[in-house]
Amino acid sequence: MSTKMKEGKKWNVPCSHMAERSINPIRNLVDSMHITPNPDKDMIALSIGDPTIFGNLPYCETAENAVIEAIKGRKSNGYTASVGYESARTAIAEYSSTPTSEVSAKDVILCSGCSSSLDLCISCLANPGQNILIPLPGFSIYKTLAESLGIEVRHYKLLPERSWEVDLDHIEELIDDNTACIIVNNPSNPCGSVYDKQHLQDILEICQHNKLPVIADEIYEHFVFSGAKYYPLASLTDSVPILSCSGLTKRFLVPGWRMGWVIVHDRNDILKDIKRGLVKLSQRILGPNTLVQAAIPTILKQTPSDFFTETLVHMKNNADTFYSRLSAINGLTPVMPHGAMYMMVGIDIKKFPDFPTDIEFVETLVKEQSVFCLPASCFQYPNFFRIVLTVPETKVDEACNRIQEFCKKYYAAGNSMNGHA
Amino acid sequence: MSTKMKEGKKWNVPCSHMAERSINPIRNLVDSMHITPNPDKDMIALSIGDPTIFGNLPYCETAENAVIEAIKGRKSNGYTASVGYESARTAIAEYSSTPTSEVSAKDVILCSGCSSSLDLCISCLANPGQNILIPLPGFSIYKTLAESLGIEVRHYKLLPERSWEVDLDHIEELIDDNTACIIVNNPSNPCGSVYDKQHLQDILEICQHNKLPVIADEIYEHFVFSGAKYYPLASLTDSVPILSCSGLTKRFLVPGWRMGWVIVHDRNDILKDIKRGLVKLSQRILGPNTLVQAAIPTILKQTPSDFFTETLVHMKNNADTFYSRLSAINGLTPVMPHGAMYMMVGIDIKKFPDFPTDIEFVETLVKEQSVFCLPASCFQYPNFFRIVLTVPETKVDEACNRIQEFCKKYYAAGNSMNGHA
Ligand SMILES: Cc1ncc(COP(=O)(O)O)c(C=O)c1O
Ligand SMILES: Cc1ncc(COP(=O)(O)O)c(C=O)c1O
Repeated sequence: MSTKMKEGKKWNVPCSHMAERSINPIRNLVDSMHITPNPDKDMIALSIGDPTIFGNLPYCETAENAVIEAIKGRKSNGYTASVGYESARTAIAEYSSTPTSEVSAKDVILCSGCSSSLDLCISCLANPGQNILIPLPGFSIYKTLAESLGIEVRHYKLLPERSWEVDLDHIEELIDDNTACIIVNNPSNPCGSVYDKQHLQDILEICQHNKLPVIADEIYEHFVFSGAKYYPLASLTDSVPILSCSGLTKRFLVPGWRMGWVIVHDRNDILKDIKRGLVKLSQRILGPNTLVQAAIPTILKQTPSDFFTETLVHMKNNADTFYSRLSAINGLTPVMPHGAMYMMVGIDIKKFPDFPTDIEFVETLVKEQSVFCLPASCFQYPNFFRIVLTVPETKVDEACNRIQEFCKKYYAAGNSMNGHA
Repeated sequence: MSTKMKEGKKWNVPCSHMAERSINPIRNLVDSMHITPNPDKDMIALSIGDPTIFGNLPYCETAENAVIEAIKGRKSNGYTASVGYESARTAIAEYSSTPTSEVSAKDVILCSGCSSSLDLCISCLANPGQNILIPLPGFSIYKTLAESLGIEVRHYKLLPERSWEVDLDHIEELIDDNTACIIVNNPSNPCGSVYDKQHLQDILEICQHNKLPVIADEIYEHFVFSGAKYYPLASLTDSVPILSCSGLTKRFLVPGWRMGWVIVHDRNDILKDIKRGLVKLSQRILGPNTLVQAAIPTILKQTPSDFFTETLVHMKNNADTFYSRLSAINGLTPVMPHGAMYMMVGIDIKKFPDFPTDIEFVETLVKEQSVFCLPASCFQYPNFFRIVLTVPETKVDEACNRIQEFCKKYYAAGNSMNGHA
């Protein structure tokens, strides 16, 4: 506080740079938008990445019973080691090990949601002034976390025409001596992309060559539609060190439980310091809720596979419907997802002369049709919007009808100024 | 990463300054100690500030049922606002309001334990290079959090001879233009002190005069023995802005649930920026477990007062026994606590010539008597040890017997070198 303030000026306590820089782009943009639905149509929110909001995707009873057992057992209310219960970490290690990437409890740190896992990894790998590479478009929290810590983010391009594969040349261009790590998000929010083995190996090749560790955001692990295959990044390398971040949030449909984890894949002792650092950082808030920690072994081992299949079949059906319906609409170009819970839809914005950007497009779509999609400007990727695939099937058709009507009204064939001065 | 490393040297990823600086002094010291109990005596751990470990202080069924209801209700599994459910925040505001310090839901932010609340407050109030004032002896996490962020801590002295009141002159000496805030912990860990109204007003006076906001660590609020009275700091001022940190951890005996909160007391709009900043910081990890959030209204409103009384009577009895027994031992000076769960015991270390400091004293006490007390060097306050009051009554006498035997063996009356070369 400056001396000046103390001498009689109005007392005002400024907030820290860290707080100022903790910017959530989605909240910021959405809060500044004019979102007033048409009172004559019920709202269909295709914007929120929370699988629980429609009530059509209940989480599994196995999870419910495991937590109830933990609380009734009355043995899981005390402090744990800040990295979490050994039993939970062992179960996660088993759940996550593959023949080519085996890990044990000592490689696992529990966190308060995958967000907190990412926070730990970024905080541990980079110093203020360094940079980290993140996908564009990509999940917004990487930027929020890094910039709040004074770490620069550099966006590497994903290529929609190649199912959102990474522009490898662009990555190489961005790397310099101050690059601390690269974040790879597979399957992806917001793209719904699922990378094949070759592409992941190509990414690893770059990391190996540049000696860059990877934060693999794999919160959507196993969350892939039939036909696609998910490869844990760590299973494809025995040389690149990887911090894999995941949790119960998505696959188990319990985002509010705030259970995430970091798994350190480090077969060549490259991350010795980092492992120690992660443990130290975990002592700052002392781990996630112990009732859920205690439930983890049961949840991971006993959730029936039907539970996962049902969710995925539902998503895939929705994806198919959205894709075929939206493909048929002039001016829209959906990109078919293969996993996660989202689809990106390109807007040929020049064909909609009423709307300078995706933001106005989305605002008017809400106002007239009560359908709310997330403008991809939130992901710094204008002229796309993101829709969620978790909606009940009955709403999908209705949403498509309304989007179709809307686009028909505003689409200007041929000359982009046609009919709309 | 330096270019040098990339050119063929062994690949080693260094950890960030933040991680390096996240030092937990208790863990660090305890891990470096030689703690090998006497195999012929069962261990009595008086060291761990976790009320659940002995099993003699079960948490309340009200809390158990409220969480079970939340999980069975299946409505509390999604994302909340990052500051938490409105219903929980309203209940906390009601629980914490006093006639002179009324707050509402908008003043409350839920966090993952009180540790996380403190993290949010410190991160929001101070920039790297600034300093904050913390008590000596005091809870170690203030230092861990602040120093990891590059914020300097300055210790203000507490006076054991005055029931651990703050040395007010010392505080005044420490304050400079770079002082961002002061942390006041009442009731106190490790001291068990409970400040009276006048003393709290004296502290507030200094804050007012120096225009310093306060972080009031009130995690032990209401946790005071009969005869003492707890005053929420915010209830005693209408001018000093206060961030009060608390949670379910202590009073409700569920540390593992990781439920904490910050309450912003700001009647003069001094913390407008800080309030905004706290909300922004809360978006970094998206709040605590929603099942516990959903249970908060019931827990706060319906926990029967008997539950609290029983715990406090138990603590007070233990405090009385420890105090009278340890007072009678030559070379020890316990300071009677009035709340929280701890008692500090001074060691007249010169009278124990075998032991250079509290650390060796404690190590040998474990080795010979299997009684483990926490050396107050953990709190940078040597030649005291801290004991917890949560142990079963049956163990208190036994612990005292053993400490007595131990001190008798090593106490050197008169000349401190007497008999022990
Ligand atoms: C790619 C990605 N990573 C991480 C997260 C955060 O997950 P959590 O809710 O477990 O913090 C999300 C949430 O939407 C996500 O989409
Ligand atoms: C004074 C004090 N503040 C804060 C905390 C942290 O509480 P929590 O476990 O809710 O993070 C403790 C825990 O022992 C404490 O003693």
